Amino acid sequence: MSDEKAKSAAKPAAGLEGMVAGDSAVCFIDGQKGILRYRGYDIAELGPSSTFEEVVWLLWKGELPKGAELAAFSKELAAETKVPVEVAAAMQTLPPKSHPMAALRTLVSIAGNVDADAECDPSDVAANLRKATRLLGQTSAISAAWERVRNGKPIVEADPKLSFAGNFLRMISGENPTEVSTRVFDECLVLHADHEFNASTFTARVIAATLPDLHSALVGAIGALKGPLHGGANTAVMHMLIEIDKKGGSPAEWVREALAAKKKISGFGHRVYKTDDPRATRLKVLAELVATQPGVARKWFDLSTEVAKAFHDQKNLPANVDFYSASTYFALGIAPDMFTPIFAVSRTSGWIAHVLEQFANNRLIRPLASYVGSEPRSYVAMAKR
Amino acid sequence: MSDEKAKSAAKPAAGLEGMVAGDSAVCFIDGQKGILRYRGYDIAELGPSSTFEEVVWLLWKGELPKGAELAAFSKELAAETKVPVEVAAAMQTLPPKSHPMAALRTLVSIAGNVDADAECDPSDVAANLRKATRLLGQTSAISAAWERVRNGKPIVEADPKLSFAGNFLRMISGENPTEVSTRVFDECLVLHADHEFNASTFTARVIAATLPDLHSALVGAIGALKGPLHGGANTAVMHMLIEIDKKGGSPAEWVREALAAKKKISGFGHRVYKTDDPRATRLKVLAELVATQPGVARKWFDLSTEVAKAFHDQKNLPANVDFYSASTYFALGIAPDMFTPIFAVSRTSGWIAHVLEQFANNRLIRPLASYVGSEPRSYVAMAKR
Repeated sequence: MSDEKAKSAAKPAAGLEGMVAGDSAVCFIDGQKGILRYRGYDIAELGPSSTFEEVVWLLWKGELPKGAELAAFSKELAAETKVPVEVAAAMQTLPPKSHPMAALRTLVSIAGNVDADAECDPSDVAANLRKATRLLGQTSAISAAWERVRNGKPIVEADPKLSFAGNFLRMISGENPTEVSTRVFDECLVLHADHEFNASTFTARVIAATLPDLHSALVGAIGALKGPLHGGANTAVMHMLIEIDKKGGSPAEWVREALAAKKKISGFGHRVYKTDDPRATRLKVLAELVATQPGVARKWFDLSTEVAKAFHDQKNLPANVDFYSASTYFALGIAPDMFTPIFAVSRTSGWIAHVLEQFANNRLIRPLASYVGSEPRSYVAMAKR
Repeated sequence: MSDEKAKSAAKPAAGLEGMVAGDSAVCFIDGQKGILRYRGYDIAELGPSSTFEEVVWLLWKGELPKGAELAAFSKELAAETKVPVEVAAAMQTLPPKSHPMAALRTLVSIAGNVDADAECDPSDVAANLRKATRLLGQTSAISAAWERVRNGKPIVEADPKLSFAGNFLRMISGENPTEVSTRVFDECLVLHADHEFNASTFTARVIAATLPDLHSALVGAIGALKGPLHGGANTAVMHMLIEIDKKGGSPAEWVREALAAKKKISGFGHRVYKTDDPRATRLKVLAELVATQPGVARKWFDLSTEVAKAFHDQKNLPANVDFYSASTYFALGIAPDMFTPIFAVSRTSGWIAHVLEQFANNRLIRPLASYVGSEPRSYVAMAKR
C-alpha cells in the first residue's frame, strides 16, 4: 500500500491547524502579537473610528469609501434591509422552537431561491455585488424578524434614516435604540466582520470554489457558524454566566469546579491567538460602556470580569471574541440564542468578501484523505456472511 | 512582516491539490492505478454485485450487512422515503424555475427544522443514525417530488415493496420502473455514493467539525455539489451532447473547434485520477445496457462514445464519472437539470458516513491563509480621503 504510506507521510496536524490553505488579501492575523487587520487597517483603530457600513465597503472593495460612495452604499444597504415576502411567509410555517441558526439557514436559502440574480455567472462582479448588498441587508432583517415572529410579534421594518446597526436593534425591539446602544452594537459588528480562514469562512470558500452561487456558499457558512466550537460559543458563554449567577457563590469557585470536572467551557482561548484576542480587548470596553447606561443591570459585566479573572488565574487562558460579546448583547436586551445570528449578520460581510475573492481567482478546493481503513477485501455474497 | 513570510514558505498547491487534510477510513482512492474502494471493497466488484442499500450500510457501519440487518434497514429506509408535510407545503411556494439544487438546499434545510432529532447531541450515535436514515429517504423523496411539483404534477409516494433505486424512478415518473432500469439506476447510485475528500464531502466535514448538526453539514454539501466544477458537471455534459446533436456534423469536429476556442468542457479528466476513472468504466457499460432497451433511443450512447473517443484522441483525457452518467439518466427519461440532485441523493450516503466519522473523532477544521494584501496602514478620517 505504497500510496497510503506516501499520504501518511504528508499527514498534517489534525484540523489543518497551522496549515496554509490558500492566499487571501482580506484579513491579516498575527496570533503571537494579537494583531488583526482588515485590508491593512488595524482592528484596534477601525473599531472605535469606523462604522460597519465603511468596513463592509472596505472588505468588499479593498479601500475605505469616499463620502459619496459611502452615502450611496449606505442608502442602498438600508433599502435592502427587508424580509422578502416569500421569506416572511416561510417564517410563519417554521416551528417557533427551531434553533435560530437553523431557521436562518433555511430562510437565507429561500432568499436565494427568489433572488433576481440567483444564478448569475460567478464572474459577473456587478451582479454579485448587487446580490451581496441585498443578502447582507436581508440577513439582518431576517435574523431580527425571526426573533419577533417566533415570539408571535409582528415584523418591524427598517427605518432608512437609521444605520445598519441601529436598524438591527430597531427591528428586534420595535423601538429606535439610544445613541450609545447603536454605537456599541455598530462596533460589535465591526469587530466580528472578518477573521481570515475561520471554519465558516473556509466553508464558504470550499463551496464557492465549485462555482455554484453566493447563497449556496453563505448557507453553508451559516451551518458552520452554528456549531458550539465556532459561533455557537457566544450563546454558551451567556448560559454559563446565567448558571453561575443562579448558583450564587464565588465565580472563582465555580470555575475551579468546572475545570476539575473537565467541563467544556466556551469563551476562552483561540486556535490562532496565543495572546490576548484584540477583539476581546475592545469588547470588554464596550461591555462596560453598556453596563453603565441608565436602566441596565451592571451585574453581567461584573460577573464576566470575575469569571475572566478566575480563568486567567487558574488556566492562564485569555477571553476570546465570544466572551465579552455575550454580556454586551444581553445588556442590550437580546436573547442568548440570538447572539449567534448576530455573529452571522456581521460575518456575512466577511464571508462575501472571501467568496468574491475566491470567484475572482478560483481553483477547486479538493484535498486528499490519509486512509486509515480496512485493507482490500473481496465481496462476500449474502448467503456466506 | 516575518509572520507573512513564514506563512508563504508553507504555501500549498492551489486548491489544496495533493495535500492531505485528515484521516478517513471510509474510502480509498489510488489515482494512479484507477482504484476506488469503499471500506476496503473495490468499486469494480461492489458495482455489479451489491445494492445501494447494502452500500449505505457498509459506508455507515464499516461492514456489509447480514441478511436480517439488511432487511430491517431496507424496510426502515423505505418507510422514511417520503416528503415531510412542511416540505411539501414549501414546494408549493418556491419558484418552479429555481435551480433544482437550490430548491434541494432549501427543502433539506426545512426537513432539518422539523426533524425530531434536529438538535441531538453530535455524540448521540443512535439519534444520528435515525436522523441519517430519515435524511437519506427524504432527500430521495424530495428530489423526485420537486421534479413533479415544478411541472405542476402531484407528488407520487414511494412503494414499500420497491428498492431505494426503484422508488426514486417511480417517484419521478409515477410508474414502477422495469427491472433493467432499476438495476442500472441502483448501480449508478452505488458508483456515486462516496469519493473520499471531494469538495462537497470536505465541505460537510468542515461544517460538521464545529459540531452543529447533521442537516447543517448536508445543506452545505448540497451547495458545493451544485457547482459546475463538481456535481453540476453531469448536467453540463448532457447540454453539450444535446448541442452537438442539434448542430449535426461530426462530433470529432465539434470537439476540435471547442478545444480550439478554449471552451470549458465537462466530463473529462479528474483532480485525483491520472488514468481511467473506475466509475466511468462501469457507467459506460450501464449506459449501453440502457441504450439497448426497447423504446430507448440509442443515439445518446453512440454520440457519447464518439465524443469520448474524440476527446481521448485530441486531448488524451479519459471520461470521468459525470460523462456516461449523463446519457444513462437521459435514456431513463430524466431531465438534465435533475442529474445533479440524483448525484446528491446518492452522495448523501457518503456525506453522512463522513460526518459520522468526523463527529466520532472531532477537531475543528481551521487552516490559515497566506496573506497577500495591503501593508499595514493608518485609518484616514472621511474628511481627508
